[in-house]
Amino acid sequence: MNNFDFYNPVKILFGEGKTEAIAQEIPANAKVMITFGGGSIKQNGVYEQVTKVLKGFKVVEFGGIEPNPKFETLMKAVELARNEKVDFLLAVGGGSVIDGTKFIAAAIPFNGDTWKIIKGGKEGVIEKAVPFGVVLTLPATGSEMNSGAVISRISTGEKFAFGSPLVYPKFSVLDPTFTYSLPRHQVANGIVDAFIHVTEQYLTFPANAPIQDRWAEGILQTLIEIGPKAIENPTDYETRAAFMWACTMALNGIISTGVPTDWATHMIGHELTAFFGLDHAVTLAIVLPSLLLETSDEKKLKLLQYGERVWGILNGTEDERVSMAISKTHDFFHSLGIKTHLSDYGVTEDQIKPIVDRFAQRGWKLGENKSITAERIETILKGSL
Amino acid sequence: MNNFDFYNPVKILFGEGKTEAIAQEIPANAKVMITFGGGSIKQNGVYEQVTKVLKGFKVVEFGGIEPNPKFETLMKAVELARNEKVDFLLAVGGGSVIDGTKFIAAAIPFNGDTWKIIKGGKEGVIEKAVPFGVVLTLPATGSEMNSGAVISRISTGEKFAFGSPLVYPKFSVLDPTFTYSLPRHQVANGIVDAFIHVTEQYLTFPANAPIQDRWAEGILQTLIEIGPKAIENPTDYETRAAFMWACTMALNGIISTGVPTDWATHMIGHELTAFFGLDHAVTLAIVLPSLLLETSDEKKLKLLQYGERVWGILNGTEDERVSMAISKTHDFFHSLGIKTHLSDYGVTEDQIKPIVDRFAQRGWKLGENKSITAERIETILKGSL
Repeated sequence: MNNFDFYNPVKILFGEGKTEAIAQEIPANAKVMITFGGGSIKQNGVYEQVTKVLKGFKVVEFGGIEPNPKFETLMKAVELARNEKVDFLLAVGGGSVIDGTKFIAAAIPFNGDTWKIIKGGKEGVIEKAVPFGVVLTLPATGSEMNSGAVISRISTGEKFAFGSPLVYPKFSVLDPTFTYSLPRHQVANGIVDAFIHVTEQYLTFPANAPIQDRWAEGILQTLIEIGPKAIENPTDYETRAAFMWACTMALNGIISTGVPTDWATHMIGHELTAFFGLDHAVTLAIVLPSLLLETSDEKKLKLLQYGERVWGILNGTEDERVSMAISKTHDFFHSLGIKTHLSDYGVTEDQIKPIVDRFAQRGWKLGENKSITAERIETILKGSL
Repeated sequence: MNNFDFYNPVKILFGEGKTEAIAQEIPANAKVMITFGGGSIKQNGVYEQVTKVLKGFKVVEFGGIEPNPKFETLMKAVELARNEKVDFLLAVGGGSVIDGTKFIAAAIPFNGDTWKIIKGGKEGVIEKAVPFGVVLTLPATGSEMNSGAVISRISTGEKFAFGSPLVYPKFSVLDPTFTYSLPRHQVANGIVDAFIHVTEQYLTFPANAPIQDRWAEGILQTLIEIGPKAIENPTDYETRAAFMWACTMALNGIISTGVPTDWATHMIGHELTAFFGLDHAVTLAIVLPSLLLETSDEKKLKLLQYGERVWGILNGTEDERVSMAISKTHDFFHSLGIKTHLSDYGVTEDQIKPIVDRFAQRGWKLGENKSITAERIETILKGSL
């Protein structure tokens, strides 16, 4: 096991009706800015519940945070919050709203060019942030219990991740009933997103971390068991509760303690979103099976363990078992209604070149072994066609 | 899944050499009181490492915190800390030192009779505590990552648990090399303690909590795999690291989120310590198998799941599988060198009566179903003879 630090102070308020508890979690006399996305919370009753609980607080609202939240949009929220002297934020939504709110929280008290917070480097280090809470409506990204965010900028076509212990949510409400009105494909995306968050932290090489392995496998097994049910039965509370908790546990830092991580599927997937506008989770489902095939020698020991413990694959040669584990993974995504080939989305072989070129220019080497070069990314993407 | 709150802000610093990092975690200019036990840290090099790192801080020491830490001893530490105007505590030791330090931290700023903090009730509610950190030397209780403590009082023969979010450690150093010098039986006790912390939160009734189940099973499987190795090979870093992490994860609140818990084995075990002076972990190993047998109808579904997933028991009638799961548990404790019968410790049938009488007087009903009466405790203890 590698040395590590682990720190996660987010207070989770889990279960139906827990929104009521937030009034005690927000400082008395706070001026609260509610941040949200496209307005679905005004249709499904969540907005009503939240505003009811916030009676007694001064409240302003900022709606319209888009998927893959944009710096330009978020800076409007920062301006509003500064003008209104907001001192607490409440993100009501999914990963994009939460990520966006993390940036807003960091940017409000920041002196100077706020893009530096995202771009990184010494000048972008934040020393304070406005405290904020979360009411989660879309289980997927895990942002409700971590301190990271991914922000895009339209004007420059850039997309970066930033993180700081100062942008852990103070609390996150996880009410499974808030997921009942989600469209089918968003639930499927959430399951795949959480699944691949886990594989990025687990399908690497053995690191003498038996608890972390078992816990990663436990999340994968759970997602496999409940995934189809979560999609078919939107109001099955228990299934949605397990789905919600699985997504949060998948990326709160606990399963990556002391182990190597990969994240190549995410890095390649981000480019597929940038080039073709594909949903984040869809890009992951496209990349992962082909990436596992390409890296199956490096990942062999963990793929065999994964096949055995998660899929019950006990028979066959090592190569056959590895191959079967990858097929099972691919078939699972399919069973959720997610198509896993680039050609399913009209992407053709000649469209791969510009992506590969971008990686080649950057000179990045991805994966837990820093072995995934542009050349291998080409192989992976061709394998995903 | 039941509704729940989860909050655990302890910063974990894990791995060889991590003691060095504590200088950055303690406020500059703090006056630090090091608390410790019988002095083993002065033999094994831990004390030396800690004091080296604390150069630059004003330091006082309080040694001699005993197993099952005593109110009377701890109040001497409180007096010293008040006189010396200590503003940070550093517990260096195992569960007893950490539990004791939690009380010291709460008692220093408390006005009035400090026993009330432990005894509970409105007058004992604490509103502040001196911040403290931990350097763990004995993996077992999980106290390094939770906010609970058990304190005894000699003068009255009382023993109570107390807890408050104010007594979470600010940080805990988990350096597996600090366990190398532990006596064999303390390692065995630690494994059993962690194992039974998990069963108390897992072997109840199904609660639609698949992640919590899998994570509990993951800790049990890990303890079974590494337990004998951890005892036989004291300086096997990787095994000791897994052992240490397993103990911490077993009682930091994460696996009990949203599920029923039992804790009857602990309640009965505490009396065996009180009456016969047996080690805490030993009492748990004595009580658990007999308790599982007595409650096997209520616990049947989880016992079958435990048998299948943790021990691989797939064949036989339900009753046979339950019985085999209990035998395997019992045999595991034996394999660690822990004797699991009261008679192994010279306790005879007539000595059981006073314990049962005490439970009868209290009128307590224990367990996840509040179904374990004094009468059933008698059956359980007779079954442990």
